[in-house]
Parts: sequence; structure tokens; C-alpha cells
Amino acid sequence: MSRLALIAGAGELPAELTAALETPPLVCALEGVAPAGLAVERAFRIERLAPFMRQLADEGIAGVVFAGAMQRPKLDPALFDRETAALVPRMMAMMQGGDDALLRGVIALFEEYDLPVQGLAVLAPQLLAGTGVLGARPPCDAEAADAARGLAILEALAPVDVGQGCVVCAGQCLGIEALYGTDALLTDVARNRPLRAPAQGGVFVKRAKRGQDLRVDLPTIGPDTIAAAAMAGLSGICLQAGHVVVLRRAEVLACAEAAGLALWAMP
Amino acid sequence: MSRLALIAGAGELPAELTAALETPPLVCALEGVAPAGLAVERAFRIERLAPFMRQLADEGIAGVVFAGAMQRPKLDPALFDRETAALVPRMMAMMQGGDDALLRGVIALFEEYDLPVQGLAVLAPQLLAGTGVLGARPPCDAEAADAARGLAILEALAPVDVGQGCVVCAGQCLGIEALYGTDALLTDVARNRPLRAPAQGGVFVKRAKRGQDLRVDLPTIGPDTIAAAAMAGLSGICLQAGHVVVLRRAEVLACAEAAGLALWAMP
Repeated sequence: MSRLALIAGAGELPAELTAALETPPLVCALEGVAPAGLAVERAFRIERLAPFMRQLADEGIAGVVFAGAMQRPKLDPALFDRETAALVPRMMAMMQGGDDALLRGVIALFEEYDLPVQGLAVLAPQLLAGTGVLGARPPCDAEAADAARGLAILEALAPVDVGQGCVVCAGQCLGIEALYGTDALLTDVARNRPLRAPAQGGVFVKRAKRGQDLRVDLPTIGPDTIAAAAMAGLSGICLQAGHVVVLRRAEVLACAEAAGLALWAMP
Repeated sequence: MSRLALIAGAGELPAELTAALETPPLVCALEGVAPAGLAVERAFRIERLAPFMRQLADEGIAGVVFAGAMQRPKLDPALFDRETAALVPRMMAMMQGGDDALLRGVIALFEEYDLPVQGLAVLAPQLLAGTGVLGARPPCDAEAADAARGLAILEALAPVDVGQGCVVCAGQCLGIEALYGTDALLTDVARNRPLRAPAQGGVFVKRAKRGQDLRVDLPTIGPDTIAAAAMAGLSGICLQAGHVVVLRRAEVLACAEAAGLALWAMP
């Protein structure tokens, strides 16, 4: 089988994916991005994206897989080569849109250069939460009901491209994930909830946005998520099965058990 | 015209409403609740709600108006009279539901005791934001676009009974109001946004939830809201015309002007 190129972002997911693949990928990263525990073999810049993609294709790279957190980079107009410069109007249009539009645009670009974008969910499904109880404890009835309410809230938000997560306790919505992500949501709930009952219990629900392209942007939890949920007084975490990466799984399960959290995934 | 009873909650709205009414109402409040700048003529307890309502009706009170913030009170089973005790199963069922269900239940109870519940929006429309620019400055195009996106997000949430407010900047949703209310939302955005661009600008959108009974529960802003929006780096506040109370209006307008905020209301 020929080699894939891994476009690695920040965090530990690129290293976990590399370990899960039979054939080690060519590890690429934007200049300045340092994936944890992984040596970058090829750094690239957006301003020279066209030659970067062309070189990968010329070397016989069979496809590309994205893993890890990416930020929108700042661009230096002086650094563009002619071919990449011709792509700038399209890039600008992509950047004006939401995250989903940007990622779909990036995928289309790579595929035009004969680099099919492959999904982490297909290449390494063992990194995702599968259906069922992941931790030691199944959810109680109240937790299952809060999870169902949370899923309904996120489902309602899907058409407006918001909401990978929310927190529900006793049917009341304590918070909804927006631009600042899961950690900010759980920290906000931890700080706000002493002000008003109910002060304990509740479930964090995490899912992919409907329409989100899972080849490039997978919701992710890790040991930090468990710790933040426990700090927020929650008693459960419900994931969308097959759509959420569980980083450092053994540690996640141990943390959930230590905190008495129900951790489960539903289709 | 015969007299109304005002069920006064916390904050300044009860006093503003009293000043706006031609006939001063009978000021009632739950024991322990102190509306600002207003003497309570009759304190009552939920455990004796039936005799309280019966007495109002017997005295010829023509109806009831609610104003001010209420919290779900703790109940002491020893204090119930027999008639109110018979209402407990209904009260419990009401308290299990969301805020809207609870308020609809409370309205139904008062009306069964011949005390029609009147809306502040009808009695004193001058306390609400009317359509148009309230402050010195109309919204710019970007602010109007962010407001439209915010309204779309809140509209999407209406079926799940969440969301009186949200913050949008350059099309991105920075936060959605949940159980902890407007102040918590704006404080959370103020703390989170230095972490990630865009760090300045954006609009806070405030509206009633669809299906919210405006006779009992009106979204409210005041000078503190303007200050919190400015602290969060926002440049505009868009209200739903005819559905949001503006407390201490002169001060609100002065604060918005001082902060350079566009403050406007749309149908």
C-alpha cells in the first residue's frame, strides 16, 4: 500500500493516528505547528500550498489525512508563489464562511491536486467512541433523560451550524458550546452553577454538527474533558457513537471511573 | 377602575411599573423578596397561596400583574393550609417542567381564583423597547448582519425552549444564553474572547423565547447589560421590539452612547 500524508495539527491526535496506521504516514505540518510526540518531516506554508500539494502528488502519495487542532493562519502576501497566488480569491471566500465551509474548501483543493482526503474515522475507527458504555457505569434514568434533552438541543442548532456540545441537568440547559469550545463551556458551567440550583449532577453531551465533514474535523475528548466535567459537578458524558475521538482512551476511562462519571456513546 | 395586585419580584421593574400605572397597585411579594424602591403591602407564602388568592378576589382586586425576578422558592410542608395542600400535586408537576410550563401553571391558578393575569406589555408598553434605533447610533452593516445571524440561532432554539440571547461576531457564535442568564453570558464571552480572534466587535441579540408567556416573564435589559456588553468588547445590542423591557431607560441610553454601542430594536 502506498503512503499517506498526515497533515498534523496540534495536540496528541496525530501521534495516536500514526501509531494506529499500518504504514507510517509522511508527517506534514504548518510551519510553527508542533504535534505532540511526533517529528514533523515536512513543514509547509499556506502561501506555498500549491507546490506543497504538487510535490506530494509527484512523490506518489496516495492521499491525505488530517488530524489535530488547526487555527486559521495569518498570511504574508510577500511569500506567495504564482500558482498559490492564483488560489487566493478562493481561499479568501472560504475564510469568510464558517469552519465547515473552510474545511470543505480545503478538501476540494487537495482533491484537485490528486490527493484524496481520507477520514480518520475510516482509517482508525478504534480511536472513536463506539456504541455503548465506555466507562464502568451505565447512565441512570435521569442521566439518560438529560442526554436525550441535550441531543434535542444540539439537533435544533444543527441548521445554523452551531453546537458540538451542551450541558443539561434535570432538563435545564446549563450551557451550549460555541466558538470557544468544550473546555470553555465546562469552565463556564463550573463557575456559574454555584450561583443557582441545581448545583450538582447533569450530563455533557458531545456530538458532531450535522453536515460537519468528519474527514477533517472530528469532535474530540480526552482526560482533560473528564476532569473539566467533574469540576463542573457533572455526573455523565454522552458521546455520539462513531463521531467522537477519545484521546488517551485508557486514561479517559480511568479518570471517568475515579470521578464516578457515566461515560457512554449512542448512535 | 378597580385596583390590580402587583406580584413583585426582585429588581427595579416592580417600582418602574408602579410609577407607570395610573392607579397604584396593591404591592404583594413572596416573603423574603424585597423589590427595589417599593414598600411591600402584603407578603405571602406559596404554602398559603390559596387563601392569599382568595383574599385578593374577595377584596375586589380586578386582576394580577407580575413584575421582577422570581426564584423557585423552597417549600415547608408544615406550613401548608388544607386548600393550598390540595394544589400541591399540580404545583409539583409544574415545577418539574421548564420555566415556561411553571409560569403557565401559575397563571392558570390565579385565573381559577377569578384573578385574571394582565401583561406588563399591555399595561405599560412604554417600558418596552419599541422598533427602531434607541441609542444615538444605528447599526452598521456588519452589526445588522450579526444581529440577523443571532436571530436565526435563537429561532432555531425556540422549539427546545432555550435561548433568550446570544452573541455573534463576524458571523461566528461566541455564546448562547442558557440557565444562568444574560449577565453570565456576557461575562463568559468577556473572559473567553481574548483567547481567540475575533477579539473585538459583535452584537448581543436579546429576544423572548417563542411561546414564552409575556404576561409573566419578559426579557429585561438595564444599565448593567450595557456595561457587561461593553466589557465583552461588543459594539451593538439588538432587541426584539415590543418584547424586551428597558429598565432605567435614560441611563441605558446614556451608557450605550458613552460606550459607542449601537442599541436598536427590530420586530
